Amino acid sequence: MINKKYATVGVLGGLGPGATLDFFAKVLENTPAATDQDHVHLIIDNNPQVPDRNAAVAGTGPSPAPMLAEMAKRLENAGADFLVMPCNAAHAFEDAIAGAVSIPFVSIIKETRDEVMRSFPDIKCAGVLASSGCIDAELYKRAFVDKGVQIVVPTGADRDTFMQLLCKIKSGNQSGDIKRTMQVIAAGLIARGAEIIVAGCTEVPLVLDETDVARPLVNSTDVLVTRTIDYAQGGSSSA
Amino acid sequence: MINKKYATVGVLGGLGPGATLDFFAKVLENTPAATDQDHVHLIIDNNPQVPDRNAAVAGTGPSPAPMLAEMAKRLENAGADFLVMPCNAAHAFEDAIAGAVSIPFVSIIKETRDEVMRSFPDIKCAGVLASSGCIDAELYKRAFVDKGVQIVVPTGADRDTFMQLLCKIKSGNQSGDIKRTMQVIAAGLIARGAEIIVAGCTEVPLVLDETDVARPLVNSTDVLVTRTIDYAQGGSSSA
Repeated sequence: MINKKYATVGVLGGLGPGATLDFFAKVLENTPAATDQDHVHLIIDNNPQVPDRNAAVAGTGPSPAPMLAEMAKRLENAGADFLVMPCNAAHAFEDAIAGAVSIPFVSIIKETRDEVMRSFPDIKCAGVLASSGCIDAELYKRAFVDKGVQIVVPTGADRDTFMQLLCKIKSGNQSGDIKRTMQVIAAGLIARGAEIIVAGCTEVPLVLDETDVARPLVNSTDVLVTRTIDYAQGGSSSA
Repeated sequence: MINKKYATVGVLGGLGPGATLDFFAKVLENTPAATDQDHVHLIIDNNPQVPDRNAAVAGTGPSPAPMLAEMAKRLENAGADFLVMPCNAAHAFEDAIAGAVSIPFVSIIKETRDEVMRSFPDIKCAGVLASSGCIDAELYKRAFVDKGVQIVVPTGADRDTFMQLLCKIKSGNQSGDIKRTMQVIAAGLIARGAEIIVAGCTEVPLVLDETDVARPLVNSTDVLVTRTIDYAQGGSSSA
């Protein structure tokens, strides 16, 4: 429970750096502020050396859990009152983070799930644009299991294409081609019954916005931004 | 002396948050990176609660020195190998920061001075767009005192107008009107003999770029970005 007014936010970042920058920019943009002092105190550890989350879930690379736990501990020591991590797939290692600290960890997965249920209480099927690690760890599937909501995700060739798009976005390429391919993958989820699309990977909103898909888009970065500002400025967390 | 390869950068930020975001965005943009792991490890303390630097120099507000020293110490404890601060005026309190830590503090003032002397070795007069605190603490004047370079800064009504522009920029207003007024102030410095204009305040590049002034523009944020990447990726600091 976070009940301190103007709490300090610790950000497990660098996963990737572009998504962390996007998160930071949106926190500033969405904080009502006339002076510097009205803004949220964020301590951002933009650590690009964290081992690849998707490779770790696939069993083809080292686990990022020890480094994430160390970052969390250092953010707590530096004064953070709660933690956020603008990367969906890395939430496969959430237990290691939460276990390393005594402050709350606000999950982007659970907050996005809650936002979906608030905005679309009668939904039966949600499409989630997610990376392979997020899919294989079943992060969204498990979050929605008690809600009676079926989750559809990119499969087969679409799944491989999605991962290639992520690599391109991470290398700084945010061209129209990437957006169009992402739109095709989203359309595939809609064809399979998705009533809404969840941008369940923080690289997705770097190229895709709500005008680009034929169903409502719930952006996990935007959800985390809103909840971070709320909790930092005196709201209380269920985390 | 920084001689560790891939050093971690501690950023004293939030002074203001918009300038810190601009610094972060430019570090990412200017780092050659194909994957997340090629990026620089930055720990950014975006602390908007630091007391106003300009008021402190004027003697009308509390000193930010104790809080800056505390932030510096926490960044060192969190693993920073050297420190930077994307705010010129706050360098009036540089001694308190450097005195609190055993890692180097890379000064935006000294790095900008060095960049000016490298690019314009024969210069006799530089105009510096600087805030009242930066001017009254004579940060640029003292940095250039041994170089035979005269520093001209906004005075009288221009100085007051410049401070009003900063407040507007900090409140999120980056309109064309602000750019045009900033151009008029820069033109005043050129009329007084400035051969180049130094953006000696990290809010200035949020509204003004090199195409907006009639003399070469040296942007202190850009200089700090370049030197930060260089030092972080194995260069050595004179700090």
